[in-house]
Amino acid sequence: MRITALAGGIGGARFLRGLLHHLNARELPSDVTVIGNTADDITLHGLRVCPDLDTVMYTLGGGIHNDQGWGREDEEFTVAGELAAYGSGPGWFTLGDRDLATHIVRTRLLGEGMTLSEATATLCERWRPGVRLLPMSDDRVETHVVVDDPADGQVPGDGPIPTRAVHFQEWWTRLHASVPARQILAVGIEAARPAPGVLEAIREADVVLLPPSNPVVSIGTILGVPGVRDALRNTAAPVIGVSPIIAGAPVRGMADACLTAIGVETSASAVAALYADFLSGWLVDEADAGEVSPPERVPVVRSRPLLMTDLDASAAIAGAALDLAAGIRQAAHG
Amino acid sequence: MRITALAGGIGGARFLRGLLHHLNARELPSDVTVIGNTADDITLHGLRVCPDLDTVMYTLGGGIHNDQGWGREDEEFTVAGELAAYGSGPGWFTLGDRDLATHIVRTRLLGEGMTLSEATATLCERWRPGVRLLPMSDDRVETHVVVDDPADGQVPGDGPIPTRAVHFQEWWTRLHASVPARQILAVGIEAARPAPGVLEAIREADVVLLPPSNPVVSIGTILGVPGVRDALRNTAAPVIGVSPIIAGAPVRGMADACLTAIGVETSASAVAALYADFLSGWLVDEADAGEVSPPERVPVVRSRPLLMTDLDASAAIAGAALDLAAGIRQAAHG
Repeated sequence: MRITALAGGIGGARFLRGLLHHLNARELPSDVTVIGNTADDITLHGLRVCPDLDTVMYTLGGGIHNDQGWGREDEEFTVAGELAAYGSGPGWFTLGDRDLATHIVRTRLLGEGMTLSEATATLCERWRPGVRLLPMSDDRVETHVVVDDPADGQVPGDGPIPTRAVHFQEWWTRLHASVPARQILAVGIEAARPAPGVLEAIREADVVLLPPSNPVVSIGTILGVPGVRDALRNTAAPVIGVSPIIAGAPVRGMADACLTAIGVETSASAVAALYADFLSGWLVDEADAGEVSPPERVPVVRSRPLLMTDLDASAAIAGAALDLAAGIRQAAHG
Repeated sequence: MRITALAGGIGGARFLRGLLHHLNARELPSDVTVIGNTADDITLHGLRVCPDLDTVMYTLGGGIHNDQGWGREDEEFTVAGELAAYGSGPGWFTLGDRDLATHIVRTRLLGEGMTLSEATATLCERWRPGVRLLPMSDDRVETHVVVDDPADGQVPGDGPIPTRAVHFQEWWTRLHASVPARQILAVGIEAARPAPGVLEAIREADVVLLPPSNPVVSIGTILGVPGVRDALRNTAAPVIGVSPIIAGAPVRGMADACLTAIGVETSASAVAALYADFLSGWLVDEADAGEVSPPERVPVVRSRPLLMTDLDASAAIAGAALDLAAGIRQAAHG
């Protein structure tokens, strides 16, 4: 079975770990391709950092800091201390020593002329994540967030409030998404080409999965790469999404702040509407069972517990997504 | 007093630390400019490493690993372990975590368009070495060593032995200079321009010092930068050298292997001959007191203990070099 999944960071990675666990436990032969979001990539200290790709790679390769969900386990921060002593780079994004090695190798490979796809494949030779990990694009796309930037001493009503665009990571990590996003821009996305294999992986899949990743800055940017959305609309495979919203709140992260920025309410139903043009099935939590009503928006909706509390829970959710796909395929062919 | 010193790595750095100690102890107001060798620079993991500049910067800035003479004190090797796990870079050159931060910052600054001079000055803002540290050139010069590279199973007499050129660091660090150097090449030196301030620092100095650095791959490459040797010949300042050879053996390092490669015997006298066209005074160890005979080669030779056993010993040697310069200046003006 050829499975293709679109993934952001922590939520996507945990879902994928559950998926692989499920496939292994059932001894289901399968090829899994993961199309990773690269729009939260950032250059720090001259090193190219790809947080979502790395979170997937570390999680599936056994190197992730489990409690944290991102970064390396048993991490050290000696280099970060030295970089700070040099006054280098932003203080709000600390790279651990182990993690840093990944960025050093990636930056060297890119500098030697490799594409991000090739560099990612090379990094994965170490981690053997058990999936084919593809960046959504080899072209640089970076999410920027437009925030209010009032002048010194400016009070409400005191004329229009100036805005400025900050890198997504600054908004997310430094500002903890607490400053309202007036606009979310995926800079470079119009010119970005899907990385080699991305469109084929969607077209030729038996199942396409949308893990419970951020619908705006993770799944949303992947969908924004020209050609990806069309491939999803046209693939013969069922496309199954797992809601990242439970009972009106994001399972983790700050998806609500991102949804608000694009004028979408924080609900499983509203997220399904973002995917309505290509979604075959939608898994929502039991708390949202009554909320999304087929067939207007999504052909099939199933509800079940969606909290990925541990590996078994994640595996069960992934299994339910595959079961939903199988049912849809059967119905189509029966 | 304007003092300009040419310097390689460990020997040069220890001499300079002694010099600063001497100047401070005597409360002698002075500006010290150090022209550092950059021909053993190397790019590792995509990061630009400048071993001699860093050894001077760390030694004078208080960050050096004292026993070792190079690298940072209290060093860690977490990143190196990760880089090895990726199979990245040569296994024979291990970069410590603290040291690595320097290379990351330097590489970023160079990538942002700074010259090596500017990047070095920026790094020195942290270390405050108490000298103006200039690279010999902002252009890339790299010492390569031609070594025998016999074919598999080739025995002596079995036709000409093929050779190959390896980076100086590979010869020095991996091969420990145990494979004879057939030739030592400073690749890029003909086109290298002296870094801003280098020629002026020699021309406008009150004293020029040559610490006991390697006469071939440290002082030798600095002298090879077009314009430097002429500046030394024409400066009004006395040029005082400190022999790196004591009783026919290098004080430290493997200078003998380098001297052999260029067909020069390992003696204080033979090294003085390399500098004879510009040297005003030459400090040799007591063991070599009878060996160099003025005035044929060098105007003035003095002998004294030259082992830099501790800071006081280094300071005394530096003081003796300054005294020798003062005597020569006095004689010239008297």
